[in-house]
Amino acid sequence: MANLDRIFHSLADSTRRAVITQLADGPASVGELAQSHSMALPSFMKHVRVLEASKIVVSRKKGRVRMCELRPRPLALAQTWIENERQIWSKRLNQLDVFVETLAEREKTDGNE
Amino acid sequence: MANLDRIFHSLADSTRRAVITQLADGPASVGELAQSHSMALPSFMKHVRVLEASKIVVSRKKGRVRMCELRPRPLALAQTWIENERQIWSKRLNQLDVFVETLAEREKTDGNE
Repeated sequence: MANLDRIFHSLADSTRRAVITQLADGPASVGELAQSHSMALPSFMKHVRVLEASKIVVSRKKGRVRMCELRPRPLALAQTWIENERQIWSKRLNQLDVFVETLAEREKTDGNE
Repeated sequence: MANLDRIFHSLADSTRRAVITQLADGPASVGELAQSHSMALPSFMKHVRVLEASKIVVSRKKGRVRMCELRPRPLALAQTWIENERQIWSKRLNQLDVFVETLAEREKTDGNE
């Protein structure tokens, strides 16, 4: 699975997006994160593992507690991919505008001849 | 399924991302799009349907041909979501920087007393 596949797959779930929002505010333990979500801990852990697989979240044991932290690079990669597509798209639309204007100008000139 | 779930799910596959890149260059028929991908048409159609479910792509029949077109709003929504998280995150890091600097300043002052 490509990096971007894993990153976007991580973002395609409201629980996982909520965890990202929680961690944007600072590191938290799995227990703290799980409190906001009404699901069994094993189900919640699956979401944490998906986030770890995409490297959006890293976790490490600190004594008996597993601490989670956000990593900025995967979200930056995802944003850059979307941004690029939108740029190609808007560039094409601008060229289309210019083309339509040129056509309109030509018709006006032709009409005046 | 929430909108953002569908949008990010659409982006979580390299074939679907390639279709978005193709369509950023302008509308194309399903046949034209499929040519670049070495898979059976029914499999390819499944990807097109996922893209349509997220409203990233709209398609309509033009005679015997199904034409596909990109819609900007879903990609904008996805980008905004990521952008917001990154802003919360970098704001926190800045506050952390200020906090650490304040601590360092205080220690220096305390050391001088």
